[in-house]
Amino acid sequence: MTDILYRSLDVLPHLAVPALLERGRTLCTPRLREAIGRLATPMDTIAAYHFGWTDRDGQPAVGDGGKAVRPALAVLSAQAVGASLETGAIGGAAIELVHNFSLLHDDFMDGDETRRDRPTAWTVFGPAQAVLVGDALCALATEVLLEAPDHSAVRTVDTARAVRRITVATRRMIDGQAQDLSFEHHDRVTIEECLEMEGNKTGGLLACASSIGAVLAGADDAVVEALERFGHHLGLAFQAVDDLLGIWGDPQVTGKPHWGDLRQRKKSLPVSAALAEGGRASRRLTKLLADPEGRGYEDEQQLAERAALIEEAGGRAWTHEEACRQHKTALAALDEVPMPDMVREHFAALAAYIVRREK
Amino acid sequence: MTDILYRSLDVLPHLAVPALLERGRTLCTPRLREAIGRLATPMDTIAAYHFGWTDRDGQPAVGDGGKAVRPALAVLSAQAVGASLETGAIGGAAIELVHNFSLLHDDFMDGDETRRDRPTAWTVFGPAQAVLVGDALCALATEVLLEAPDHSAVRTVDTARAVRRITVATRRMIDGQAQDLSFEHHDRVTIEECLEMEGNKTGGLLACASSIGAVLAGADDAVVEALERFGHHLGLAFQAVDDLLGIWGDPQVTGKPHWGDLRQRKKSLPVSAALAEGGRASRRLTKLLADPEGRGYEDEQQLAERAALIEEAGGRAWTHEEACRQHKTALAALDEVPMPDMVREHFAALAAYIVRREK
Repeated sequence: MTDILYRSLDVLPHLAVPALLERGRTLCTPRLREAIGRLATPMDTIAAYHFGWTDRDGQPAVGDGGKAVRPALAVLSAQAVGASLETGAIGGAAIELVHNFSLLHDDFMDGDETRRDRPTAWTVFGPAQAVLVGDALCALATEVLLEAPDHSAVRTVDTARAVRRITVATRRMIDGQAQDLSFEHHDRVTIEECLEMEGNKTGGLLACASSIGAVLAGADDAVVEALERFGHHLGLAFQAVDDLLGIWGDPQVTGKPHWGDLRQRKKSLPVSAALAEGGRASRRLTKLLADPEGRGYEDEQQLAERAALIEEAGGRAWTHEEACRQHKTALAALDEVPMPDMVREHFAALAAYIVRREK
Repeated sequence: MTDILYRSLDVLPHLAVPALLERGRTLCTPRLREAIGRLATPMDTIAAYHFGWTDRDGQPAVGDGGKAVRPALAVLSAQAVGASLETGAIGGAAIELVHNFSLLHDDFMDGDETRRDRPTAWTVFGPAQAVLVGDALCALATEVLLEAPDHSAVRTVDTARAVRRITVATRRMIDGQAQDLSFEHHDRVTIEECLEMEGNKTGGLLACASSIGAVLAGADDAVVEALERFGHHLGLAFQAVDDLLGIWGDPQVTGKPHWGDLRQRKKSLPVSAALAEGGRASRRLTKLLADPEGRGYEDEQQLAERAALIEEAGGRAWTHEEACRQHKTALAALDEVPMPDMVREHFAALAAYIVRREK
């Protein structure tokens, strides 16, 4: 099964994406399950629910554990420098733990009740338990990295490097969430502020995902930094697409609530760009978003009007172009790193998928 | 000033405790302030409020930042192996960050509205912000350790050891909090379960505080492990005293709400011991705690009756004896480590203070 999976990657790059995602998942999930198994009850059950492995009663479920873009990138980052898939998988598991720590906490902080078509953990198990499980996942990420030298070829000095980089990424992600939360209470946010927030919130961890295998393998700083730049810009492209899906995505496909971002008055890129444009639609939008009345209780029609105004003011087109610009910058960074052609093509295929995805 | 402080330690050990605590605070606070200063707004303000440095409006305050037992222990653990005060202070700052991460999260999870005589951060700034600042402090702890080789004599390989140990302690602390939360919904908890929970919740981090300076200095595992055992048992003594203060402490002195632990039906050591005793008072207590009626709405008189029943069933005396037993075991572990007499006496003085404190 695993052999077939790996051979199937050896096809046209864009056809390889499902297999690349599946490979990352296949390599990282056993490590994640082992790590989650160490948690005290009921945290193990709650984490398994969150990852989509079980239902709320702890019964096995065929859940949607997310796209698993980060594990796939981590595995490629090991292959890029000639390291083992296992090295990449250790890094991928750590990244996935940090990512899911942030989802558990952010869902609670943002009041989001649905993720991947299921009730979020805090709505099922309560805020205290969801926060605590998030805390545990964050600590487990460091633990998984620091244990690597016990059972793999990874050196202690490289795990220290990896922990340092993942910790900086985690802190940037937390900074980004603080900025995002505070933006909801601002009437307007500049495009620059929004890009800074998204760079922190998404760029840092994607940069880490795209380089952690190389870090664990002891690669040169120059290689690591170029891979980080690739991941950072890919993260900005990812977030731009996320912002588009947050307004114009199909809830049936994204698994997220309709108009969720508009209801929360998120100052995402399309909104910031529309507010900056200054024309008629932009001014009308500015007025609506500054109005404290009905905050959080807007009906479908009001939200649809806002979406139309954002589009009319060019926020949708600008964000789409921004995703393309970031995508291009990411690929330029990738070109700086010597690596096997196949690995480069797979990185590029994942990047194209991230920009074109519908969920 | 600092010189006077250090010379003042050279007196009868029990007289040295205020100076030892002050020294730990003086050495660690600048490092904590520098680390907190890196956080994105408004997290820096919220953290400064939590640490007692500012009031809720960000104005400087002469706050009670807690006893600062952990920084004092960390500094001693460096001195024990002949390392610099700075090495101890780096470890102490990291431990204090993890400790305060847990306070911020636990206060929210437990619904505690007062700490150190002030409203808890989540009641002032909201749960989302308080949780997020806690997340940031936890990541900062790792960051502070990993940066040590950049500006001190600490080696990278020893920071990796220190991060591994603090991460394991953090995970145990989270396990302990999960157990503590679940105990509130159990009618009874055995003494063994309670000791396991308290070992996780308090013992792990005190073990780390009592050894981290030695770990950063590259001490032998045998030395580190003996210091950890000292800290673990000291942590259990600390928690036993905390449990006594949680019921019979003077709120004017502790800064915590009257009968707080009883109101939350915490299964602390005095309660577990009283439930295990089996006599008349024990049976009456069992009945009261199993009664779902009035849960959380008990009046002062009902809570006073419960405290009296716990005392009558021997829960208070047993917990006091347990604190003494753990204190003795801690000192035995300390004896295993060769260290200057003065440092040993200071460790012992802090241990005596922890067992005899009234807040």
